Amino acid sequence: MDRKTLVNHIRQRRSCLCVGLDTDPSKIPAGLDVLTFNKAIIDATRDYCVAYKPNLAFYEVLGSKGWDILAKTVDYIGKEHFTIADAKRGDIGNTSGYYATTFFDTYGFDSVTVAPYMGKDSVEPFLQHDGKWAIVLALTSNAGAFDFETLTAEGKPVYAHVLEKCSQWGTPNNTMYVVGATRAELLAEIRKVVPNHFLLVPGVGAQGGSLEDVMRHGMNDDIGLLINASRSILYASSGPDFAEAAAAEARSMQQAMAQFIS
Amino acid sequence: MDRKTLVNHIRQRRSCLCVGLDTDPSKIPAGLDVLTFNKAIIDATRDYCVAYKPNLAFYEVLGSKGWDILAKTVDYIGKEHFTIADAKRGDIGNTSGYYATTFFDTYGFDSVTVAPYMGKDSVEPFLQHDGKWAIVLALTSNAGAFDFETLTAEGKPVYAHVLEKCSQWGTPNNTMYVVGATRAELLAEIRKVVPNHFLLVPGVGAQGGSLEDVMRHGMNDDIGLLINASRSILYASSGPDFAEAAAAEARSMQQAMAQFIS
Repeated sequence: MDRKTLVNHIRQRRSCLCVGLDTDPSKIPAGLDVLTFNKAIIDATRDYCVAYKPNLAFYEVLGSKGWDILAKTVDYIGKEHFTIADAKRGDIGNTSGYYATTFFDTYGFDSVTVAPYMGKDSVEPFLQHDGKWAIVLALTSNAGAFDFETLTAEGKPVYAHVLEKCSQWGTPNNTMYVVGATRAELLAEIRKVVPNHFLLVPGVGAQGGSLEDVMRHGMNDDIGLLINASRSILYASSGPDFAEAAAAEARSMQQAMAQFIS
Repeated sequence: MDRKTLVNHIRQRRSCLCVGLDTDPSKIPAGLDVLTFNKAIIDATRDYCVAYKPNLAFYEVLGSKGWDILAKTVDYIGKEHFTIADAKRGDIGNTSGYYATTFFDTYGFDSVTVAPYMGKDSVEPFLQHDGKWAIVLALTSNAGAFDFETLTAEGKPVYAHVLEKCSQWGTPNNTMYVVGATRAELLAEIRKVVPNHFLLVPGVGAQGGSLEDVMRHGMNDDIGLLINASRSILYASSGPDFAEAAAAEARSMQQAMAQFIS
């Protein structure tokens, strides 16, 4: 999906919500399988979001059948939503190339999250597919973000080096960055470095970030945000009304976003 | 596999060779499938190496059947060799926990390569399984290693921060580090920071690192090295004699190593 189409979806639905499909078999209602649950969540939230983000760990742990469930989930999402393989891949060039092929061609995702530690040749293979995106980890929402990402290196934090260098390798049309909502106070700073890029923002909801703060500090002229919620939507209810509860939670987030999207 | 068993294998075989199973369907002899090729390589190299390292990208790209091939490959390797899932995973805590479960429990690997960018809670879940190992990226063998890994942060390179912090989280009995052979001149420096840990060293062979330099600068009292070769062994011949050629290449490396292992 190209940037223009994504921005159109955001404006039409007045939403920049991304629903994270971190589907945990131990948390879904008894008797349901992962694919059936995913389909119900997708049907319930489709009108309120612009993106879906399956978290690969939750599918890989199921063995090869998890990958079949993943493929069927992506297929069920269809073409009207931006799809993110939250896989955090990154390796030497030829290997990253295989990961890009896997997620873009074999599974048809629009984007993959990419770990930047190994540098340029580990990121570039994700930038060479038309209409596809690398979403590079910059400043994440977890406690460990303060171990290496925020080290001061040559006058600025490591994550700022990541933003600057990756922005030389790619463009705002094929590169996004992960910036955690739990660091909303830094969003304004980050916007100075990457004013035009989309940011994928996890950490709203279960992890405690404020949606309003993220909208206020993170938006650009094209909105420029995909705000992810996973557990707060998927497990809004553990009962048979889980899909209605997920819809209500997604609608509530969409309505909060709509106040900022004219 | 615990450290004592690994060290015994190294001393008995006088080898610290790890064979990288980066099996590329476009490079194996016509008419062979990936699993058959892997089995032939394993049979040919078993006596000369102590570890096997399937590169996950090459299996993921095949879709769900790639994961079945991976499982059968690990099973075929058996328990007399150390197994490494070269997956470079790393995510927030609960997600890293699922990756650990996937590779240690679902697939039975001894170890997983782990990307450190997201910090402590992304690494720790790999350290909580008895007899299993996290192999953390420190200084890699690719050109992009100079983009972020070698940035000077608070007086030392980022990779040195990774070595020091990860060594607080784990022990030399459950943590190893990736240090590229193409940086052999830095191995002596790295040994000062992590004298007791095992290092997984890629980059010998096709990537140009010197095996002798790595042995000379990298060994510790327990040898402490796993030196990986992938393409130079797998594709030593593209003809029907590929297995004999792989055996010859692996034997040649083992003999070079044996001069350093008494």
